[in-house]
Amino acid sequence: MQGTVLYGPRDVRFEERGTPTIIEPTDAVIKTSATCVCGSDLWPYRGISPVPQPTPMGHEYCGIVEEVGSAVARIRPGQFVIGSFFASDNTCPHCQAGYQTSCQHKEFVTTAQAPLLRVPLADGTLVATPDVPPEELIPSMLTLSDVMGTGWFAADAANVKPGMTVVVVGDGAVGLLGTLSAKQRGAGRIIAMSRRAPRQKLAREFGATDIVTERGDGGVTRIMDLTKGIGADAVLECVGTQESMMQAVRCTRPGGSVGYVGVPHGVELDGEKLFFTHVRLHGGPAPVRRYLPELIDLVWNGKINPGKVFDLTLPLDQVAEGYRAMDERRAIKTLLRP
Amino acid sequence: MQGTVLYGPRDVRFEERGTPTIIEPTDAVIKTSATCVCGSDLWPYRGISPVPQPTPMGHEYCGIVEEVGSAVARIRPGQFVIGSFFASDNTCPHCQAGYQTSCQHKEFVTTAQAPLLRVPLADGTLVATPDVPPEELIPSMLTLSDVMGTGWFAADAANVKPGMTVVVVGDGAVGLLGTLSAKQRGAGRIIAMSRRAPRQKLAREFGATDIVTERGDGGVTRIMDLTKGIGADAVLECVGTQESMMQAVRCTRPGGSVGYVGVPHGVELDGEKLFFTHVRLHGGPAPVRRYLPELIDLVWNGKINPGKVFDLTLPLDQVAEGYRAMDERRAIKTLLRP
Repeated sequence: MQGTVLYGPRDVRFEERGTPTIIEPTDAVIKTSATCVCGSDLWPYRGISPVPQPTPMGHEYCGIVEEVGSAVARIRPGQFVIGSFFASDNTCPHCQAGYQTSCQHKEFVTTAQAPLLRVPLADGTLVATPDVPPEELIPSMLTLSDVMGTGWFAADAANVKPGMTVVVVGDGAVGLLGTLSAKQRGAGRIIAMSRRAPRQKLAREFGATDIVTERGDGGVTRIMDLTKGIGADAVLECVGTQESMMQAVRCTRPGGSVGYVGVPHGVELDGEKLFFTHVRLHGGPAPVRRYLPELIDLVWNGKINPGKVFDLTLPLDQVAEGYRAMDERRAIKTLLRP
Repeated sequence: MQGTVLYGPRDVRFEERGTPTIIEPTDAVIKTSATCVCGSDLWPYRGISPVPQPTPMGHEYCGIVEEVGSAVARIRPGQFVIGSFFASDNTCPHCQAGYQTSCQHKEFVTTAQAPLLRVPLADGTLVATPDVPPEELIPSMLTLSDVMGTGWFAADAANVKPGMTVVVVGDGAVGLLGTLSAKQRGAGRIIAMSRRAPRQKLAREFGATDIVTERGDGGVTRIMDLTKGIGADAVLECVGTQESMMQAVRCTRPGGSVGYVGVPHGVELDGEKLFFTHVRLHGGPAPVRRYLPELIDLVWNGKINPGKVFDLTLPLDQVAEGYRAMDERRAIKTLLRP
C-alpha cells in the first residue's frame, strides 16, 4: 500500500509503506473513503515544528470497516465509521467526563493519508453512521473527524449560548467551522476576524454577521467599537499564536469566555494581566469523540454542511500538491480521495 | 481623625489624617464597626510591591452609615452596611453581568483601617444587613467585605458542585474560607493543602476531609494518589505564586476547573502546557458585591461562621502590631476595632 510520508520541510511523498493489519485485538482496519490535510500538518511542513525522521501523515478520516480484532464488539465490518484524531477507550474516567483526547490510553492517529488505516481502540474511537452515507455527505462526515469537532468544541468551551455576541479569531477551516458552530448554537451576532475575501464569503455563509479585517490592537479596538465598549460574550481562538491569543482575551468581556483550540506555539500568558480581565479560559485538543453522535445526526439530516470548507479535492496520490495549495493559501482545506 | 498609613517596608503608622467627608453626591461616610488586615496588605508591607509614597491602608470594612450624599437613594444613615473593596455603580454592563470588580466606574477603597471611611458610589457598593447585627456576628460580617467573598468566588469560579472532589491551595484566610465555601456548596471531599497545625485544624472545622502537607511535585503526587490518578474536579488557587498556580493546574482533572483568586505575582502560564491539561481557568478580583446579599443571609441565619479566621483582635490604634503578627505568621488574620 502507498501512503503519505513527510520527510522534512515541504517534502511530502506518497510512497510504498506496509499494508496496515490488525495488531491488537482492539484494532480495526478501515478503507478510507476520504481523508484530508489539516492546518496543523502545516506546522511541520513549514519547518516550524521539527521533523526528526520521515513521518507518516494524516489524522482525519472516515471510511468502511474492513476488518476488526477479536476483542472488538461494537464496530463491525461493512459499517461506515468516523473517528477522532486521538484513539480513546471511551471508558476511562477522562473519557467518561467527555475528555476523550485526554484518555488514559489515548493514541494519536497519524497514518490516515492513505487508502487503508489501522485504528486502535476501535470500539471506543469509532462511531458508525446510520447507513453508508450518500456521496455528497462524505466531505461533511470527514470534517467531523477533526475540524468540525474542533470548531464545535471551541464554541462549547467558550460557553456560546443563544443570543450571545461571539467573536471568531482565525479564518482557517477551524475558525470557519467555529462560526458555523456558534450559529448552530444560537449566537445572536458572530463577528469573524478575516482578511481574505473567499474566507469572508464562507464565514458569512456559515453565519457571520460582521467581518473585522484588522488584527492586534486595531482588531481589539474594532471589536470594542462593535460591542459598545463591553467586549464579546464568547471568543473562539482558532489560531494558536501569542498575538491571536491576546487578541482573543482582550476582545472578551469580564466574565466572558475564550475557547481556544489553536495549538499554542510560543504562547505565554501573563498571570496578573489575565487575572484582571476576569476572562474564562478553556481549550485543548478537541474531544471530538464526545460530539460525534450529535454531529453525525446534524450532517445526516442536512442541518449543517461543514464539508463546504473543502475548496480543493485531489486524488490521494497528489497529496503533495494538496499541502502546497494550503501552504500557499490557494486552498482553505484539501480533500483527498483514495 | 487618625488612620493607618504605610510608609515603607514594615513601617505602618497610625497617625492624624483628615476626617472623611462627602465629596461626590454619590458618596457615603460610614463609621467602621470593624476593619482588618488583608493578606494582600502584606505584599507592600514586606516590600515585595513598591510603596512609592505614604499610602493610606485598608479595604475591608463594615459599619454604620453616618451621612450620605444628595444623590444616594438606597442607603440611609443608621444602617449597618458592608461593601466590597472595589466601589462599583452596580448598573453598568459589567456589574449587571456580576463582575462588579470590573465596573466601568470602579474605585479601589484604600482608607478603611480608620474609624471613619468615605465610600464612593454608595448605592451600588453597600449592602445593608436586615438590622444592626449583634456583636458576635460582626467578625463574620466583616469577612464578607473581602476574604469570605473571595473564597466564595474561588469556589464559584472553580464550578464547585455537590459531591465534587475539591483541592484548596493556600491556607491563608482566603484558602480557609474557600474550604468553607466548597463545603457550603456541597463538595463531597475537600483536600486542604496546609502545613501549619492551627490552620489545618481550622480547615477541618470548615469542612476539609483531607490535609496534604507536601507542596510542588510532592503535593501533586499526593493529590493524584488521593484521587486514584484522576485529579480533582475543582481546585481553588488562593496564593498567587508560580508554584501555587502550577500546583493547582496539575492537580486538576481534564475538564476540571481552577478558580484562582490569589493576586498573581510573577506568574507566567505556558500556553501549550495549559492546552494539553484541558483545565478550565477563571479568576480575578472577586466580585464580592454579587455575593453580599446571599452571604449576609447565610451569616445572619447562623449557617456559616467565617469570622473564625480572625485569631487576633486588637484596638485599631495597635494596627502596626496587627501587621507584624500576620507577617510573622503568629496570626492568620487580625481584626481591628476602632
